[in-house]
Amino acid sequence: MVAFEVRLNEEFERGLRSSLRENQISVSPADLRTFAVDQGPVTDYQEPAAVVWAESVADVQAVVRLAAAHSVPVVARGAGTGVSGGAHATAGCVVLDLERMNKILELNPEDEIARVEPGVVNADLNSAAAVHGLMYAPDPASYKISTIGGNVATNAGGLRCAKYGVTRDAVLALDVVLADGELIHTGHRTFKGVAGYDLTSLFVGSEGTLGIVVGATVRLKYLPVDVRTLAVFFPDVASAAAGVLVLGAKRVQPCILEMLDGASLVELDSHHGTDLSQRGNALLLAQFDGLAAAMEADIAAEALAALGGSVNREDPAEAERLVELRRNNRGLDVDSDITVGEDVAVPRSQLVHYIAALEEMAARHGVGVRIIAHAGDGNLHPTFWVPESEAAAVAALNAALDESIDKALELGGTITGEHGIGQYKLKWLPLEQAESVLQLQRRIKDLFDPQGILNPGKAITSRP
Amino acid sequence: MVAFEVRLNEEFERGLRSSLRENQISVSPADLRTFAVDQGPVTDYQEPAAVVWAESVADVQAVVRLAAAHSVPVVARGAGTGVSGGAHATAGCVVLDLERMNKILELNPEDEIARVEPGVVNADLNSAAAVHGLMYAPDPASYKISTIGGNVATNAGGLRCAKYGVTRDAVLALDVVLADGELIHTGHRTFKGVAGYDLTSLFVGSEGTLGIVVGATVRLKYLPVDVRTLAVFFPDVASAAAGVLVLGAKRVQPCILEMLDGASLVELDSHHGTDLSQRGNALLLAQFDGLAAAMEADIAAEALAALGGSVNREDPAEAERLVELRRNNRGLDVDSDITVGEDVAVPRSQLVHYIAALEEMAARHGVGVRIIAHAGDGNLHPTFWVPESEAAAVAALNAALDESIDKALELGGTITGEHGIGQYKLKWLPLEQAESVLQLQRRIKDLFDPQGILNPGKAITSRP
Repeated sequence: MVAFEVRLNEEFERGLRSSLRENQISVSPADLRTFAVDQGPVTDYQEPAAVVWAESVADVQAVVRLAAAHSVPVVARGAGTGVSGGAHATAGCVVLDLERMNKILELNPEDEIARVEPGVVNADLNSAAAVHGLMYAPDPASYKISTIGGNVATNAGGLRCAKYGVTRDAVLALDVVLADGELIHTGHRTFKGVAGYDLTSLFVGSEGTLGIVVGATVRLKYLPVDVRTLAVFFPDVASAAAGVLVLGAKRVQPCILEMLDGASLVELDSHHGTDLSQRGNALLLAQFDGLAAAMEADIAAEALAALGGSVNREDPAEAERLVELRRNNRGLDVDSDITVGEDVAVPRSQLVHYIAALEEMAARHGVGVRIIAHAGDGNLHPTFWVPESEAAAVAALNAALDESIDKALELGGTITGEHGIGQYKLKWLPLEQAESVLQLQRRIKDLFDPQGILNPGKAITSRP
Repeated sequence: MVAFEVRLNEEFERGLRSSLRENQISVSPADLRTFAVDQGPVTDYQEPAAVVWAESVADVQAVVRLAAAHSVPVVARGAGTGVSGGAHATAGCVVLDLERMNKILELNPEDEIARVEPGVVNADLNSAAAVHGLMYAPDPASYKISTIGGNVATNAGGLRCAKYGVTRDAVLALDVVLADGELIHTGHRTFKGVAGYDLTSLFVGSEGTLGIVVGATVRLKYLPVDVRTLAVFFPDVASAAAGVLVLGAKRVQPCILEMLDGASLVELDSHHGTDLSQRGNALLLAQFDGLAAAMEADIAAEALAALGGSVNREDPAEAERLVELRRNNRGLDVDSDITVGEDVAVPRSQLVHYIAALEEMAARHGVGVRIIAHAGDGNLHPTFWVPESEAAAVAALNAALDESIDKALELGGTITGEHGIGQYKLKWLPLEQAESVLQLQRRIKDLFDPQGILNPGKAITSRP
């Protein structure tokens, strides 16, 4: 990692200081280091020239206008919990932190919507909604600390999207500051609305490269009146994957359907002192919610037992605890050069083939692999690792990673189910998308941001 | 209505005839008249120079390439059941009919997806899916005859979207022929996927102005194992609207929630010999599906009875019949200069205020109004009418229409919940969207279609 020291353009800095209060601007080396990266792999460490905390839409507009006038890149940032490097700094950029814009502007239980500033933490919105028997459904693993703005920027997924959809499905309208500082409003406050092009969806998942989301109107869902959770251990991961298809065939719709392989169970045991890996070589966690939760759980339990699954229904609280362990275990796996978590998705029928392929390629390359999956969506998070950062080991790790991406695509999948392209996955994007599609996206980027100041080098590939 | 006779550019015609078979091209006056309009209001009748039936992606590419070379406008068309004039012809255009591309290319019950050509009829896809216990959820009133391609072009809604979402929510991936004839593929076959910008959503609802959809991969949902339907009569429409909010407060999620006012009941009675209008001045039809359907229906029946609703649970088949009547009643209301159906949406809490305002403004302008609503979505279809096409009456009708649009916007609504802007609603679009947003859309249109040959004058406003 090489640190660059980039001085702030003096006139730009004067402008910032005349627009914002002192405690909204930092150029301290410690802050520049802290805000240089998110939780994604760092392949090209760069430091910002300044960190700025916006407290209002007008602040964001002022910063973007100044940045446009001085051609300074702007990297918008929520809680910095992204894992693809979408909020990594560009050399000499301004990191525009939106966490102080954390007000829930409206929560309307009759209309079942909320209007929020981008810095509202996902869990805080859920707490506020719960008072009214409502919830904000998309629940990325980071939901306790990540912001709605960041969730929108990455089109975050989560556990509950098996039933409730991803962030895009929850966003009705956006307030966006464009690259010239203009504020626009997209979408509608109503559940349905088809006036004009779907600009809202275009901004969702665009990782701050087309505009900066400064407000969101989101649809809330009903907090379930009943929740039933099953923990089902299987002798092998192939049986567990078959269980995923059986639940589909039985037409029961879990709100959460997670699969953990044997190596993931060993990992959890080593951190939590549990004995999960003694009880099977794969675990399926299926949660059902709503009025039919108990009925669905009964149908699921019977179907999974018939496949050889071991269902413990004596201790329902254990299954709930395991879902919480699963929710939090991504935190154990901070990426490094010797441990890299992936985020591919494959059609559900291919889960079993893909997992077998992952195990085969890990063995062949001599690297470790453990696999957890949002199995209901076919979205897998395999983690590859090697014991030490010796060059041959790292090369083997990267070879296995590349191969895992190729295989996911070969099976009709995608290189990113929910984490986003960010900076880290740009290298694989041309494997998934044809040059014509990449080019179309570059032209959209040019249209929205002709100077290229908004989070350059993220989300889409540059010209070859 | 003035008919223009526009001759086909000779070189273009030679090109068409060398690319397609004879039965794929028509310049007969009868065909030109038939394919000049869809089911939307006709304010500016124009005839195409030719109608072309594509039978393959290559056909579409050939036609678009020729059109681009000769600057001939191309109006893509499915079944022509749109009601906003989105498929009305432009003078001298080619109408590119996609109905012959009607193959279901794949229906994968394990992956719960289908890949279809654009001309597949919505109901045919549902029949094919039903064999596997699956359904394609978006169900516009026209589902028995409208095509998936047309549904995608308009982002069609329907009755079931109260629970299952609109077309956009069902579309995973698209094959699109761009304005230069190039074929691109957007999206992913997996339920989740966040690689690059959401081009799929940008094409959905763009009414053939950005590209021509020649294939779609859609997500299927589970055909419900149980369905319970309630028909609840109320003494007035305000109580019925209160019922909509009560169902929300009880946290039961109908798959269908339709509201009909007294005038709509009279209309149904006059067509079907029923006595609905004797039984109340408003009707709420609530359908629940899935394993919890019976429980949800019980909760709903109790809550609606407490509000003064009259629930007949002795004859469940009647409620189902009424839903079918409701599904089909749009067909009774073909728009004309003396009868115009609207398609606004308002936040659900505003339903009662909006309906009161509609009745007040109709009375004040001396025009008739009857109101049906997809009440679960706040999506209303008021129909205004006058007895004869005398100039003062038509002026009053149009004044009431304009006012109804203003009022929907004032209450936080939209000018089109599900029918699309097409050609007819362009005049109202600037009331909903700021010039900056309109301009952004024009620039996107220019990017995708620099010559402006794809369905010109639809979906978005031209430069002022």
